[in-house]
Amino acid sequence: MNDRILLGHGSGGRLTRELVDELFVKGLQEAAPHSMDDAAVLPRQDHKLVFTTDSYVVSPLEFPGGDIGTLAVAGTVNDLAVMGATPLYISLGIILEEGFEISRLKNIVTSIADTAKKSGVCIACGDTKVVEKGKGDGLFINTAGIGVLAYPTDETLIQPGDKVVINGTVGDHGMTILTMRKGFPLKSSLQSDCAPLNGLIHQVAQQQQIKWMRDPTRGGVATALNELVENKPWGVMLSEPDLPFHEAVDGLAELLGLDPLYSANEGKVLMIVSAEHASETLKALHEHPLGKHAAIIGTVTADYPGTLILQTEMGTMRTLGILTSDPLPRIC
Amino acid sequence: MNDRILLGHGSGGRLTRELVDELFVKGLQEAAPHSMDDAAVLPRQDHKLVFTTDSYVVSPLEFPGGDIGTLAVAGTVNDLAVMGATPLYISLGIILEEGFEISRLKNIVTSIADTAKKSGVCIACGDTKVVEKGKGDGLFINTAGIGVLAYPTDETLIQPGDKVVINGTVGDHGMTILTMRKGFPLKSSLQSDCAPLNGLIHQVAQQQQIKWMRDPTRGGVATALNELVENKPWGVMLSEPDLPFHEAVDGLAELLGLDPLYSANEGKVLMIVSAEHASETLKALHEHPLGKHAAIIGTVTADYPGTLILQTEMGTMRTLGILTSDPLPRIC
Repeated sequence: MNDRILLGHGSGGRLTRELVDELFVKGLQEAAPHSMDDAAVLPRQDHKLVFTTDSYVVSPLEFPGGDIGTLAVAGTVNDLAVMGATPLYISLGIILEEGFEISRLKNIVTSIADTAKKSGVCIACGDTKVVEKGKGDGLFINTAGIGVLAYPTDETLIQPGDKVVINGTVGDHGMTILTMRKGFPLKSSLQSDCAPLNGLIHQVAQQQQIKWMRDPTRGGVATALNELVENKPWGVMLSEPDLPFHEAVDGLAELLGLDPLYSANEGKVLMIVSAEHASETLKALHEHPLGKHAAIIGTVTADYPGTLILQTEMGTMRTLGILTSDPLPRIC
Repeated sequence: MNDRILLGHGSGGRLTRELVDELFVKGLQEAAPHSMDDAAVLPRQDHKLVFTTDSYVVSPLEFPGGDIGTLAVAGTVNDLAVMGATPLYISLGIILEEGFEISRLKNIVTSIADTAKKSGVCIACGDTKVVEKGKGDGLFINTAGIGVLAYPTDETLIQPGDKVVINGTVGDHGMTILTMRKGFPLKSSLQSDCAPLNGLIHQVAQQQQIKWMRDPTRGGVATALNELVENKPWGVMLSEPDLPFHEAVDGLAELLGLDPLYSANEGKVLMIVSAEHASETLKALHEHPLGKHAAIIGTVTADYPGTLILQTEMGTMRTLGILTSDPLPRIC
């Protein structure tokens, strides 16, 4: 096999098959029990299905805490999990740029396999295309995911007094990518939080009703909550002192004048639960490795309908609006 | 709205929502009854599921007979249909290059909606990413598809004497793209055959057992049949005089020294049926608008195990091997 991707690897002929057999089938192993043929036949499912898709164009492809492969599986698993679904199957569409190093692709496939294993999903089907050098940017991945509805959320149950919970520090992924992109030395322990959250969500959801869940990726916590409160007769008030931040995120945010509440997360889930269940939720989250720094960060309030409000450390109130354009493209 | 794609259209913020609401939701209309939210909840399915994915990187994006949007829906519908599935849901992942014309995107979304309508599938969920100018090539699309198994094929039933049938002329899509790519004037009526085949396949499959089906896309008829015969105790003999070709494909192939049997099709299906059912199959195909030029083009033979053979016009035999590298990248 060559050490770089050739246009012929996307031809559908012998080179494509070699790439699929040698690299994807071998690299994915038990993560891909199906044939990686054009389409996979799956068992009948006795529940409602949930279907999602995401493309991943993150730059750089590798970063502290993971790579585009980790992200492509975790991101789609998380989109299913926050819908209250048990993720089952993932499709894997890869667009390669001619000249991409095969060894690098192998590492990314290993991340895909590892993350699939961690989250218990199968890679059911795949596709590889190659574009000419200069017409892509190394590698893009699209994953679609199928899950079955297990713990339906119901945002119509939300009422003033309900609590907003997050499973850990805010803005890590976005700030990690930013640090790399700007060429800052990464001296701290800051890394992307990218991880599949279905296990953690299962742990909470089997115990109590989660009224609403969202993974605050592009646009961060503030965007996810803004989308929730829009046109609602209630708003959400976040409490700044309760927001968990990695110390490096705090420092970077101040240095660059950026608000980590708008910074992407790839291993975080926001949940809204009733006030009476909030402490149990927190307890369940704390027991999971991905929920050690979980915190109650806000409250649903009738005082600011349709609005996301930050109660600052100093006790003042600040509206957190919708992001018009991300200062940092290609975060995921 | 701007007239070109900005990086901010991929931010996950207000511009992304504007793009989704104004362009995708309005453009897709009844083709996308779900909210185009991150994930869609679908009904329970009482059959085995079939799951497939493909990325589309065709260049140029528009061509006689369709565009990348037509291709992205028809291609994924066809991957499901040739597995014997009824296609139901399609996901839509789009990677845009900064600066792409919004009006062009609108036309492509219209093609997506039209092709979805024609084939009776819903666009269930979507995602949009934007990469910087020079890091992509206008627009790439990934579609994944879910169908339910309706007419399972079974290639273990194949035996010598069985007939190979195709629903029309060979190599049209590949030769159309080639013609455009080389800048040849398109004087003839040649156009891409891209079309969803689920209706046509349903028409045949409800009447009789199809032992094997495949859509001969990248690598063409010869590649699809080579993959079939590999390691089999039988081979396939194609009859050159029976192969239907558009006259322009014949001419171009001769001019350029290319074999249209390796040229991509995007609206063709190869079927293997028993000899006794072959004429009924042909009749059912001829009754469908996409099967007017259907023909019996070959026979399964014990004489050449594991091999694809062409019986030429002159009566000589020629082996059709596996393509190593496509002379024409980015055909789909």
